[in-house]
Amino acid sequence: MVQDTPGALLSILRDGQPRTRAELVQLTGLARSTVSQRLDALLLHHWIVPADQAISSGGRPSTAFTFNPRARIALAADIGVTRARLAVTDLRGVILAERAADMAVAQGPEVCLTWVLETFDELLAECGHRMSDVCGVGVGLPGPVEHESGRPVNPPLMPGWDGFPVADRLRSRIGVPVLVDNDVNIMALGEHSATDPTTDDLLFAKVGTGIGCGIIAGGRLHRGARGAAGDIGHIRVPASDVVCHCGNTGCLEAVAGGGALAARLREEGLEAAGARDVVRLVRAGNTWAIRLVRQSGRDLGLVLASIVNFFNPAQIVIGGDLAEAGEHLIAGIREVIYGRSLPLATQRLHIRASELGVHAGVMGAAMMIVEHVLAPESVDQSVQG
Amino acid sequence: MVQDTPGALLSILRDGQPRTRAELVQLTGLARSTVSQRLDALLLHHWIVPADQAISSGGRPSTAFTFNPRARIALAADIGVTRARLAVTDLRGVILAERAADMAVAQGPEVCLTWVLETFDELLAECGHRMSDVCGVGVGLPGPVEHESGRPVNPPLMPGWDGFPVADRLRSRIGVPVLVDNDVNIMALGEHSATDPTTDDLLFAKVGTGIGCGIIAGGRLHRGARGAAGDIGHIRVPASDVVCHCGNTGCLEAVAGGGALAARLREEGLEAAGARDVVRLVRAGNTWAIRLVRQSGRDLGLVLASIVNFFNPAQIVIGGDLAEAGEHLIAGIREVIYGRSLPLATQRLHIRASELGVHAGVMGAAMMIVEHVLAPESVDQSVQG
Repeated sequence: MVQDTPGALLSILRDGQPRTRAELVQLTGLARSTVSQRLDALLLHHWIVPADQAISSGGRPSTAFTFNPRARIALAADIGVTRARLAVTDLRGVILAERAADMAVAQGPEVCLTWVLETFDELLAECGHRMSDVCGVGVGLPGPVEHESGRPVNPPLMPGWDGFPVADRLRSRIGVPVLVDNDVNIMALGEHSATDPTTDDLLFAKVGTGIGCGIIAGGRLHRGARGAAGDIGHIRVPASDVVCHCGNTGCLEAVAGGGALAARLREEGLEAAGARDVVRLVRAGNTWAIRLVRQSGRDLGLVLASIVNFFNPAQIVIGGDLAEAGEHLIAGIREVIYGRSLPLATQRLHIRASELGVHAGVMGAAMMIVEHVLAPESVDQSVQG
Repeated sequence: MVQDTPGALLSILRDGQPRTRAELVQLTGLARSTVSQRLDALLLHHWIVPADQAISSGGRPSTAFTFNPRARIALAADIGVTRARLAVTDLRGVILAERAADMAVAQGPEVCLTWVLETFDELLAECGHRMSDVCGVGVGLPGPVEHESGRPVNPPLMPGWDGFPVADRLRSRIGVPVLVDNDVNIMALGEHSATDPTTDDLLFAKVGTGIGCGIIAGGRLHRGARGAAGDIGHIRVPASDVVCHCGNTGCLEAVAGGGALAARLREEGLEAAGARDVVRLVRAGNTWAIRLVRQSGRDLGLVLASIVNFFNPAQIVIGGDLAEAGEHLIAGIREVIYGRSLPLATQRLHIRASELGVHAGVMGAAMMIVEHVLAPESVDQSVQG
């Protein structure tokens, strides 16, 4: 109830603006002696530093204090179906070391998580840190995840992972908090926190081999009743009856996903195994590939137009491998949404490519765990412990 | 920042459970003298009462205190296109007096709001209250509303209301806070707070002459970037090309709304002006009307199936005039959603008729303003004033 704790004070200082004792007394309504005690506890555990130390190490003693984004570091893993990206970040999500590698998630959790742990060790060494500096680990997986328990739930593309205690396993090895979520959710978190944290309602559509959507509603990630929110890949595209691997017909993913486009390019005698080959052909100026990507954008637009009427987002961010095809995909999406959605719902709608690109996932995974670690209760525990 | 105020203490007591000074000291971590001061302020302004007074007026002096739902009363108006319902409620949303009447919103705001104010006076007299007991007014309108300013925004069915300062006008007459929202939003609020406040993600679909949806996301009303969220009436139904009044084709409202069904019944030589006539015919056992309502449910199901994949709600509540047709509508909705949505998204999905029925709107409008008035800051102001 009472919020005059060190953690509460830190949540004020987290914006990075230096503040003096007097300013903090005024902001909080707390007694000067209380503010001083709280500041001492935060200083002792390096959560804050005197403001001039943040700029130069010498000079007169400062009376202003500021958040120390290097107080701890976070580990982040964005695990895809065939590729993984790992990073070490500071507490603002700034990447200190990063590595991407081909890794088949179908090898199962034991092999994959062992590789993740080894690679984290290498990345830590690379940026001059030790495991004892790490405050937590954020992980994204390419399937539905029960966020509370950190376990995948019937993930169609992850054989061997169903119900595997990913969070518990990593926590038992590293000894810090671990949070696990769906890969598109962490991309939405990354894009939201890094590029537009003041936007309340944002959708992040990942268009790769599969298609999914991360949802920020009222400034917070919306996971839905069973953590299944955002699974737009199996929404039916009007007037389409392609059979999907899920057993239904006309699913967006079977019509407009990178895998579906690659298959149609192969029918034309072109070499294309997946979304990245489609992008390569578009970049090489292949007319057929460009036409397919633009039509994929229109099909996405049909599904997103309905979602715009329902959800009225302020921003739709397009990411994933197929987004690397440039403006062709987004042009098709815009064409249909602006033609089909209600005028009020599109009045201030911004449809754009992801600014973080391939880094959205690791930055979101890092911010997910950082938010958890910097919650006032967690900070209070850390300074008592 | 510091939350040891009377309003914060009241927010603990709002659950209606009686608590002693000692229990409150333990719960809050505040000093006993501070708790006593806060309780005195709340008692003085009747926000709380000694717990035994809530049961009997005599007996030994009590040491436990409880929230007083009769401390103030709220006024609520649910204004539809052709019909309005007004109510006086206590602070739990319990209806003390209520009236429904035919009223054409097309008469414009001056005529309508004058009638609303006169009727509030009559209802207050009916339940033995005066305007000075009123803490605030909640209003629902049948069109898009800018919630912050309390003005309708281009409402298609409300000629003369566009941009009219509804909240300001009522506030200047009654002198209490006024909040205005879309009618389906307040229905969702009413159903959520009265029947299942612990459900985080709930959709309330109103199926009447028009079709709209109120969205509870993470326990809070989701209004969207321009207050346009939930406008599902103009989402396209696959494989339909009926022309809608909005200029597009295949809109859900033009295919499955009560107005569209009545028009098709008239083509068969039956008398039907709107949704309520359709319900009358269904209740009379007219086979054609029953078939149309069931098909309307299936069309709604097609649109809601996509929304279930996207949003993963825990509950879908069906209300509005056409919902009075009984199980026929909901049977069609269930049939398509369970056949089309992803298994994980429907695993614990509950699709049901509104429990509050025609009262959902006024109860939601009341709870909207009560939540505002009982926010700790508002209560703190009231006990200082």
